[in-house]
Amino acid sequence: MTALQDRQNATTGDTSALHDAPRRLAAIDLGSNSFHLLVANYHNDRLQVVARKGEKVQLADGVGDDGLLDEAAMTRALDCLARFAPFLEGITPRNLRVVGTNALRSADNSQAFIERAETLLGTRIEIIAGREEARLVYLGAAHALAEDGRRLIVDIGGGSTELIIGEQFEPLALESLTMGCVTFTRRFFNNGELSEKRMRRAELAALSELANIRRPYQKVGWLDPVGSSGTIKATAAVIAAEGKSPEGVITRKGLLDLRKRLIKCKRLDKVSMSGLKADRARVFPAGVAILSAIFEAFELEEMRYSDGALREGVLYDLVGRNSPEDPRHQTLEELTQRYNVDIRQAENVATTAIGLLDQVRDAWQLDDDQARFLEWASRLHEIGQAISHSQFHRHGAYLLENSDLSGFSRPEQRLLAFLVRAHRRKFPVKEWQALPKSEQRSHSRLARLLRLAVVINHSRPEQAPALPRLQASGEALALHCDESEDLNLLLADLEDEIAYQKAAGLELSLT
Amino acid sequence: MTALQDRQNATTGDTSALHDAPRRLAAIDLGSNSFHLLVANYHNDRLQVVARKGEKVQLADGVGDDGLLDEAAMTRALDCLARFAPFLEGITPRNLRVVGTNALRSADNSQAFIERAETLLGTRIEIIAGREEARLVYLGAAHALAEDGRRLIVDIGGGSTELIIGEQFEPLALESLTMGCVTFTRRFFNNGELSEKRMRRAELAALSELANIRRPYQKVGWLDPVGSSGTIKATAAVIAAEGKSPEGVITRKGLLDLRKRLIKCKRLDKVSMSGLKADRARVFPAGVAILSAIFEAFELEEMRYSDGALREGVLYDLVGRNSPEDPRHQTLEELTQRYNVDIRQAENVATTAIGLLDQVRDAWQLDDDQARFLEWASRLHEIGQAISHSQFHRHGAYLLENSDLSGFSRPEQRLLAFLVRAHRRKFPVKEWQALPKSEQRSHSRLARLLRLAVVINHSRPEQAPALPRLQASGEALALHCDESEDLNLLLADLEDEIAYQKAAGLELSLT
Repeated sequence: MTALQDRQNATTGDTSALHDAPRRLAAIDLGSNSFHLLVANYHNDRLQVVARKGEKVQLADGVGDDGLLDEAAMTRALDCLARFAPFLEGITPRNLRVVGTNALRSADNSQAFIERAETLLGTRIEIIAGREEARLVYLGAAHALAEDGRRLIVDIGGGSTELIIGEQFEPLALESLTMGCVTFTRRFFNNGELSEKRMRRAELAALSELANIRRPYQKVGWLDPVGSSGTIKATAAVIAAEGKSPEGVITRKGLLDLRKRLIKCKRLDKVSMSGLKADRARVFPAGVAILSAIFEAFELEEMRYSDGALREGVLYDLVGRNSPEDPRHQTLEELTQRYNVDIRQAENVATTAIGLLDQVRDAWQLDDDQARFLEWASRLHEIGQAISHSQFHRHGAYLLENSDLSGFSRPEQRLLAFLVRAHRRKFPVKEWQALPKSEQRSHSRLARLLRLAVVINHSRPEQAPALPRLQASGEALALHCDESEDLNLLLADLEDEIAYQKAAGLELSLT
Repeated sequence: MTALQDRQNATTGDTSALHDAPRRLAAIDLGSNSFHLLVANYHNDRLQVVARKGEKVQLADGVGDDGLLDEAAMTRALDCLARFAPFLEGITPRNLRVVGTNALRSADNSQAFIERAETLLGTRIEIIAGREEARLVYLGAAHALAEDGRRLIVDIGGGSTELIIGEQFEPLALESLTMGCVTFTRRFFNNGELSEKRMRRAELAALSELANIRRPYQKVGWLDPVGSSGTIKATAAVIAAEGKSPEGVITRKGLLDLRKRLIKCKRLDKVSMSGLKADRARVFPAGVAILSAIFEAFELEEMRYSDGALREGVLYDLVGRNSPEDPRHQTLEELTQRYNVDIRQAENVATTAIGLLDQVRDAWQLDDDQARFLEWASRLHEIGQAISHSQFHRHGAYLLENSDLSGFSRPEQRLLAFLVRAHRRKFPVKEWQALPKSEQRSHSRLARLLRLAVVINHSRPEQAPALPRLQASGEALALHCDESEDLNLLLADLEDEIAYQKAAGLELSLT
């Protein structure tokens, strides 16, 4: 991957600048319970928080049994984002990341919300996978912890709970389970009643989710259990307000007592405790049930609360991006190894693809980020062959669409998957139409460059062949081929390619 | 895999018998151009042919532009099978294998034909993948060759061409390309005209298919190019009839001369040559075009014809089946390694699943072969986790359905994929209904046993827990649980499972 990293640096070219002037960064976390905004300056390798805002939008509560996010929740969410928007002014896209988690992962109409929110914020929103969320949570928590020992990080959110074991900045085990204080409130306390039986049912459901990871996690082991985010922060605050344990520490005994006090409230709307904010009260018992199950499964004696969660992780990740530490390089390397990619062929196709892109870069207004994804897709286009040669472009797309790709957001995975899906045979018009409108033009342009690069390298040469000239005029492409020994074969392939593109309404001509 | 292999031997238990009385075996190859029947006695490690029949059914010619096999071709095919059927009398299912190749792989209504053919023959028909076909072709050819050197085996069929490099019985590179003498006749000689231009277009299309493997194959290298099957046999015969090369050897010069003579015929229906059977004449020029392209791509000077092709490979494979050499063991091992399966958990689930099966074996009339597949599915049920924990049962099913699994037929892969797809969460009623009617009952029974085994091992214990008692009455299952320390958790999971099965109309009760 060295060649790739060199190119990275060459095309980005501004990493040294990071160490001089402060860089203004922002992250928004569209959580299932709360939305959070974090703005910070990055200077001399440190983040200095400039603004921090959080609102309990309870997005997950607006996802009905039909799987749709309702209008009321969308309005709450958009109103909140309208209040966040002014903080983003003057922050460039590469210094800004907006991520959505479980509620947006699971709602069937997320795309409609995202389009409205993107228009409002004027920036792209990425839904991230559960394990990617866990990785970012760990990154945020790890930066907040002074000690170095092996720790178990627990983050109970509105729709999912992340559990990560790690040392320093390295996660050793990570998982995201689909249980959260908002979704569990709906599932187990829907009628507002709060009883021993209902608490136990919620705990058993949580234990069932945890059963799969309990023993593997115990085998990895940890010294220090640490919790982050709202539910755990509130639990620590309520227990501390009782004077039963030091500030920021949840003991097993304190948690058991809290559980009893909650059951005595009998109804969610009667839950009121010193240290507990009113807008958390309704989802607090479900959060405590999940935390109790975690204590039970992992036989914890105590857990301390620490700041540093998803939004901090997103910022630290942003800082690491587009530099040699970009976690996406590691992910790509793992993919090419696991699926036994023919590296030489992948590099030849990448060389040709970038050579073609450079010729139409201005006409097609393609930027460095798009060039990077074309290069990555070139490196990955054959991974599906590890499954089967037959239809390998489909298998590769399936892997890229569905795998937990550390460091990649959903739209990024979708782009890679689309390019690989589209790299040979018929141009996949249906899949192309299913892309968000805003991505259609650039994705089809990149796909056509990759297709040409694959045709040109069809005979799997030792080195990428001499680059033919390419011109773009609107969406029409014209390729100029000089004579070469394999010309007959190349021409036959290019004729097929012209027919494939024509069938998709795309013009490719040959001179 | 040792435990698995031991079980294999224990449950099959009759391998020693092979060395005493001769075993009567039969294979039918439903090729795209010809159907072939081969009946042999297996004794003292050798196959002795008892009967051999072949008919040019030209199945691929009956697949229209709509992708459907037409009624005329189905009738030709069924008439041919009616003539083969008497030869199968008294041969038990485990000694008989009927395989379909490219035409049946590609026709959209293959299943309709297969059901009629299965009824006629009274045995199961398996459509095999291209690379599996290549593996079997190699196995057949390797047994027919006396010499040991590294060889390139070429088999030009009606709808696909297999190219394999191997030493002794070990393939080193194998591929199946979708080009054959019947499909290329339709594509390039459809109006019956035979010209230099049309021959060259067919050759260029073949070269384009070959371009992908040309360099990798040259890197592996070979000493001895060998061809098998009708097209190559006919080519050798025609060249020998001219007296231009020794019997059974195709020289480059001889092939070029033959190509010229063919073009001089000007029309397919005028092709008539000494050594060429009339029923091959129409598809012969397309076959020669493919062979010429192979000579060109691999720069061959000559190729010799050898008997031993798909049908022989099927028989040798049948002999190796259900013994420690069963190639499916190797395939399973590769899968569990590539996808990092947690072996302990897989073995625990397998132990429980087989323990449950043994209790309902009689009531549900499950045989050793079904037990074997339940055990294999248990070992593979978590492979999808390598892609993502989220929906990993779907990912696992995708891998098993789409991968080239050496030694497994399509229906076998479909069974494994279904069991993995169905092992957790909702019982997949839609996927179940899509199975062939004849497989539905047994597949759902096996799937329910796997589901229970997974629930029982949910907490990923060191060893499989004590086996609960299981009874079947019709499709209803009753599970008897004794007290255990994890009982509460198990009960919560089992209640979910009862609800899942109920939603699919299946009864599971708990006592």
